[in-house]
Amino acid sequence: MTREVDNKTTSGQEPALDLSELRQQIDALDSELVQILAKRSALTRQVGEFKSKTGLPIYVPSREAQLLDSRKAQAKEVGLSESLIEDVLRRVMRESYQTQNKHYLCACPEVQNIVIIGGHGALGSKFVTMFERSGYHVDIIDKDGWHEADSLFATAGLVLVAVPIRQTEQVIRTLSQLPENCILADITSVKSGPVKAMLETHQGPVVGLHPMFGPDVPGLVKQVVVISHGRQPEQYEWLLEQFRIWGAALIESTPEKHDEAMAFIQVMRHFSSFVYGAHLAAENPCLTELLKLSSPIYRLELAMVGRLFAQDPVLYGDIIFSSDTGKALLKRFHGRFDEAMALLESGDKQQFVSQFTAIAEWFGDYASQCLADSKKLLLKADDDRTLETGV
Amino acid sequence: MTREVDNKTTSGQEPALDLSELRQQIDALDSELVQILAKRSALTRQVGEFKSKTGLPIYVPSREAQLLDSRKAQAKEVGLSESLIEDVLRRVMRESYQTQNKHYLCACPEVQNIVIIGGHGALGSKFVTMFERSGYHVDIIDKDGWHEADSLFATAGLVLVAVPIRQTEQVIRTLSQLPENCILADITSVKSGPVKAMLETHQGPVVGLHPMFGPDVPGLVKQVVVISHGRQPEQYEWLLEQFRIWGAALIESTPEKHDEAMAFIQVMRHFSSFVYGAHLAAENPCLTELLKLSSPIYRLELAMVGRLFAQDPVLYGDIIFSSDTGKALLKRFHGRFDEAMALLESGDKQQFVSQFTAIAEWFGDYASQCLADSKKLLLKADDDRTLETGV
Repeated sequence: MTREVDNKTTSGQEPALDLSELRQQIDALDSELVQILAKRSALTRQVGEFKSKTGLPIYVPSREAQLLDSRKAQAKEVGLSESLIEDVLRRVMRESYQTQNKHYLCACPEVQNIVIIGGHGALGSKFVTMFERSGYHVDIIDKDGWHEADSLFATAGLVLVAVPIRQTEQVIRTLSQLPENCILADITSVKSGPVKAMLETHQGPVVGLHPMFGPDVPGLVKQVVVISHGRQPEQYEWLLEQFRIWGAALIESTPEKHDEAMAFIQVMRHFSSFVYGAHLAAENPCLTELLKLSSPIYRLELAMVGRLFAQDPVLYGDIIFSSDTGKALLKRFHGRFDEAMALLESGDKQQFVSQFTAIAEWFGDYASQCLADSKKLLLKADDDRTLETGV
Repeated sequence: MTREVDNKTTSGQEPALDLSELRQQIDALDSELVQILAKRSALTRQVGEFKSKTGLPIYVPSREAQLLDSRKAQAKEVGLSESLIEDVLRRVMRESYQTQNKHYLCACPEVQNIVIIGGHGALGSKFVTMFERSGYHVDIIDKDGWHEADSLFATAGLVLVAVPIRQTEQVIRTLSQLPENCILADITSVKSGPVKAMLETHQGPVVGLHPMFGPDVPGLVKQVVVISHGRQPEQYEWLLEQFRIWGAALIESTPEKHDEAMAFIQVMRHFSSFVYGAHLAAENPCLTELLKLSSPIYRLELAMVGRLFAQDPVLYGDIIFSSDTGKALLKRFHGRFDEAMALLESGDKQQFVSQFTAIAEWFGDYASQCLADSKKLLLKADDDRTLETGV
């Protein structure tokens, strides 16, 4: 305070504020911020109600883009970072996507009931909730619920198979008595076998689905669902429409193409993480020490490996062991590991550099885009850090 | 509009707002938001000036925690998501850390000049800027600047070696004529060799530094710098203080422990990404197709591999080929890959599950923490997605 008086005396101008006064003003602004966000959230809830009545989609890319563009333009005018306001608004919009809808428009009110086999499972129960929130009557069949299956099937407009991979085809084969206009669908992470089994077992509409997300997503907005068409797509159009109402992004793929892609996306990824984890556990370094010394990207990489081991070993065993395409891919991956090791042991750094350059060419522009995206993400990851240092 | 009138007529109450009115109100709130953030940023700039005069650190964990706690408490009261306000404030604080300081307090005004060898390089030039912004006179020696080296060294209080790994020790060996009280330091990503070389070449204060970040970080706030003490720490205490003023987190490690950790953190990570990239390029799948079908975590994993190939092959060749500890670690990693492949080929899923479980036990609580952290981060990554779908 003395300092402030001194300033005033010597300069004759408004004094510079001291730290605690500046902090008080910052706190006051932050408090306004909370209030604005609370008001905003009340408005987006109203938007949600409006949309659930009218069936308008929750996520509208053009509205999102227009909203961001106006605020970025305003930010530019007042000298605020455009990427700051963009990041803040995107985070705020995520919240509103998640909380907007407790209820969704029902795309097909004529459907009497939906049966979800495995509806008590992690992902199965997610779909139970989504259908129920959209006004459908949902029945669940689980391990011990098969005695009433026939009566449930009799009126079903959709039977969704949501059991573990290794049981999927076997369960499908039991479904030969469904009403002919009933849709048969599954949500397993392989598609060739299940779609084939569904087509062979059931004569009505058939569609294979693969939701590319885990049971822990807060909602389906922006989440990818792969669609492998089976038979009579016009009969299950309402089901796809229901996914769109939930905000999902539907991507079409044949069962075969899907399974080839999944060999890369799932089998190779999970297997690599498994080997990385096995290696770490065997080497037994001090994790705390490693993390303390780490760059943000390494902490992220380690988190991506570590997260596998907080999940169900049987599920991942199923994914890795059940795909022949995956196994063949891993075998070739193994061969490439051998080659890279031989290169390292030869000490031929020049050859390493030229292989590296060739791979970079294969990645093309995507590599620099990855660098830019991951930088942005690492900054976000770092926002959450609190550090206690040792020096 | 007709709709609204109807509502009023039939219900006699205030009408529900229609979508465009709700959106207008949201836009008005967002506009207030921009103004508040602009005011806040003006205040934090003043905080920055205050701190740069007084030498107070930019990042003060306790202030950050207190600020977040008050707003989260307020959010709870008004029914706003606490994690939303926390994420928003953390993002806002990042911006203020980055823009707060154009100038920093000089920890040691007595230092006449600092010489940075390799100061035109990517990371070297980052340090040139940081020292200059803190009021030091900095001279740069680069490939062709050695003719004036002796006169620059004569008055130097610090000589910082910032050249590529493969040249570091060789450059250090030429520095036998530094003034005895001059600090000799390096910023290479290996520490045993360089610290040994510095101790043997120079009789005065010696310290090895490893900044765990790339040249693209916006500032040093919360960034980790590893410190390997060499000799006469009391002589270079001001240098560490300068890093603290910049906001860096200093972590002490011996050169040997550092290098062991880096075998995991750098060598293994870069080599794995290299093999993964080599495999992808050889398999040649359609990247666009893969990305379209991907889960958020796979897109992130692919980005972490792809980013490597947007960077300097020689740098990564140096990192991988220059570490004997790293090479030995990779050899054992290779062995573990062989074992995992043999397990896969045996088809023994039970054995896979029990190995998986053992690894999960090794990771301990860290695995679930990884899962939670990566979930949070994946949500942030997804905030940035805009989707155009094919169905």
